[in-house]
Amino acid sequence: MSALACRLLALALGLALCSARAAPEPAGVASGFPDAQASDPARLGWMVGAPPPPDRIIRFEDGSYWRFPALRWTASNFRQLMPTVAVSRGLGPAAPLPVALREDLDGVRFTPLGTDRSMTWRQALDANYTDGIVVLHRGRIVYERYFGVLEPDGQHGLMSVTKTFVGTLAAMLVADGTLDPARRVDHYVPELAASAFGSATLRQLMDMTTGVKFSEDYADPNADVWAHGAAGNPLPKPQDYSGPRSYYEYLQTVKPQGVHGEAFHYRTVNTDALGWVLARVTGRSVAQLLSERIWRPLGAEQDGYMSVDSTGTPFAGGGLNTGLRDLARFGEMMRNDGRFNGRQIVPAAAVADIRRGGRQADFAKAGYALLPGWSYRSMWWITHNEHGAFAARGVHGQALYIDPKAEVVIARFASHPVAGNHANDPTSLPAFHALARHLMQAGR
Amino acid sequence: MSALACRLLALALGLALCSARAAPEPAGVASGFPDAQASDPARLGWMVGAPPPPDRIIRFEDGSYWRFPALRWTASNFRQLMPTVAVSRGLGPAAPLPVALREDLDGVRFTPLGTDRSMTWRQALDANYTDGIVVLHRGRIVYERYFGVLEPDGQHGLMSVTKTFVGTLAAMLVADGTLDPARRVDHYVPELAASAFGSATLRQLMDMTTGVKFSEDYADPNADVWAHGAAGNPLPKPQDYSGPRSYYEYLQTVKPQGVHGEAFHYRTVNTDALGWVLARVTGRSVAQLLSERIWRPLGAEQDGYMSVDSTGTPFAGGGLNTGLRDLARFGEMMRNDGRFNGRQIVPAAAVADIRRGGRQADFAKAGYALLPGWSYRSMWWITHNEHGAFAARGVHGQALYIDPKAEVVIARFASHPVAGNHANDPTSLPAFHALARHLMQAGR
Repeated sequence: MSALACRLLALALGLALCSARAAPEPAGVASGFPDAQASDPARLGWMVGAPPPPDRIIRFEDGSYWRFPALRWTASNFRQLMPTVAVSRGLGPAAPLPVALREDLDGVRFTPLGTDRSMTWRQALDANYTDGIVVLHRGRIVYERYFGVLEPDGQHGLMSVTKTFVGTLAAMLVADGTLDPARRVDHYVPELAASAFGSATLRQLMDMTTGVKFSEDYADPNADVWAHGAAGNPLPKPQDYSGPRSYYEYLQTVKPQGVHGEAFHYRTVNTDALGWVLARVTGRSVAQLLSERIWRPLGAEQDGYMSVDSTGTPFAGGGLNTGLRDLARFGEMMRNDGRFNGRQIVPAAAVADIRRGGRQADFAKAGYALLPGWSYRSMWWITHNEHGAFAARGVHGQALYIDPKAEVVIARFASHPVAGNHANDPTSLPAFHALARHLMQAGR
Repeated sequence: MSALACRLLALALGLALCSARAAPEPAGVASGFPDAQASDPARLGWMVGAPPPPDRIIRFEDGSYWRFPALRWTASNFRQLMPTVAVSRGLGPAAPLPVALREDLDGVRFTPLGTDRSMTWRQALDANYTDGIVVLHRGRIVYERYFGVLEPDGQHGLMSVTKTFVGTLAAMLVADGTLDPARRVDHYVPELAASAFGSATLRQLMDMTTGVKFSEDYADPNADVWAHGAAGNPLPKPQDYSGPRSYYEYLQTVKPQGVHGEAFHYRTVNTDALGWVLARVTGRSVAQLLSERIWRPLGAEQDGYMSVDSTGTPFAGGGLNTGLRDLARFGEMMRNDGRFNGRQIVPAAAVADIRRGGRQADFAKAGYALLPGWSYRSMWWITHNEHGAFAARGVHGQALYIDPKAEVVIARFASHPVAGNHANDPTSLPAFHALARHLMQAGR
């Protein structure tokens, strides 16, 4: 393999790092890494100066952009490193998000999973390497903070929260009859007939219960995730590169493993395949669909954007970047059964189906020790807790947490040193729940 | 030279194609190219499909993106091919642009330069391969059209109109005393001391009367413009590449040619050097400055963006992309002596200085046969005509034309097959003037 090919594989890391790790150890906060203050990207001065000092320049090509702590800058600046396509908000006014800030939330206490010592909401922000967080209660902003290099008018990588947007689009098209969830994937995309996806149903694809071979073990140099990243990498391919040259080409090479419909297997490629179905059926790219079906009706205050491969295909599995408040608007719409900004954006039936969740028995087989009793439906994570909370999740701590009973929506961007959410779930999930309960009680 | 190095040089073309050609032949419309309809990028279906057909995929790496007619798609989609940085509008409301459309403008007639047969305004839109055009009269939109793949909420490359924004920023900092136009460039950027720029004054840099060696003759494979583009190219450098690796590194290699302050020489590198001065003095990148000093106060309705080199430096010489109406807002602000959106954005003294223009005798030495009596000041083109019109110009037909006497602003995006504006000036300049006169008379 040439040096350039090696570099391409290395840099593929970032684009592919978009999935939670299954069967995690119940770890606590990150150890062996500089803490939130010491790794603050504003303090470290990445890409500041004319020119920046050589050791403060972040490059896509050598993979340095996704090494901690540089990734704390990158998470808010993907577009400066790679080609992207806009998710346009259109030109209309933004949907207002009333502000009613509260001072009592920083002190809310909770007990991290696997420990017996409580901590405060404010302490958890640091423990989770939070870049930005906004909390809505009954549709009003009650809490909003930005850290590091993220500004209110900036965009942050959503990582696998992207999948949730794509799954929601699919659920919308199922609800309006454009897509039949019982149909096989190769009915919609004949090019996938010979791949593992071809014989799966659309529903299995949407719920990630397909039986497809795709390893996202980043410690394994032969893991499929590397080949996926190399295929989707927008940089010129090395001359001796002979693999697939786009996401779509890669998907056609995916082999079966196991049986469709029996268990939840979190695989980024399912979302890429779902994105292909959406694009084929609608004649619109996933970025265009997001703009037309969600971003514009939502009254987003900023354009979002998606990374693209060398053929212009947006990375459906993890390439979306948005403003924090706009992610909150999306959550608020889902909390309100699909209504927001004076209109029904997602059919209420589609929201209800998502909130009912998937089969918990299927989910349990994936072995997420920190997510007992959860399920996965249309690329949403369903807690099945007593509040009916459901969530979108992305590596390094991206989260959209919706608690319908408490009328709370929490949108969080983070740049945790550990990719898998098992590393921040202990200081995130109980914090979200405690804050929701606090707001529910205080709001009475 | 390796094949990859060759490719890098080839693709540098697009980034560097940002200057008008001096001493043009007084050519008419393009000949030997498909016309506006036949080259319509929407009709040709570039990058449409899942995936697009192989012959409809546009790539940065092989230079195909900037070959006609593919460049007609690229001009509205630069961000899909390369890394970019946002020029944020912030999150406030857009400054309103009242609409009072008129139906009488398409038929306005004018006589193209060098001919004796008149054509209509509408015919000129096709002759100029217009992608979008908006006309303001007394601050109201009286005419607005989009063609091809440009939408009202899209962004189009401004090419060298970028320079005008950078020059305006410099003029603002001169007006407020931050910059001294009589100082030498190496006072502000010591790294430029050994280059041709070091001994020039800031004023000479702003007016492009420096004596620097920089050939932008694209027909010459040894032209400096290739090395400039290769240095600024954000793609990984080939292993055998030994040249400068950023715009700033390139600028330090520029050699003297002639004497400073004697003649106008249109050289893109002057603007890159000016951008360096601005960044060094303010501690902000040109993109940040544009956002803070112009885009936010202007009440722009869209974020703009700039292409960046591999160190994150925005391409000051030609990398800005904006929405069409926002370009018009900028023009309207300049027409109103720097006031717009309820505030003084550019000091009135700076606008007055620009409108007075530079030395016409210096400009004449550059030999622009189609621009008799013009001058260049702070990176604006001054017509010195009876209306006091002044303009920003970029290759392939980008234009911002401000006619103070007629109270008219014309913002135009285009993707003409010929880079130099000598190819479209004959069907542009008299059209702009005729439309302004028409509006001035009709508006009485």
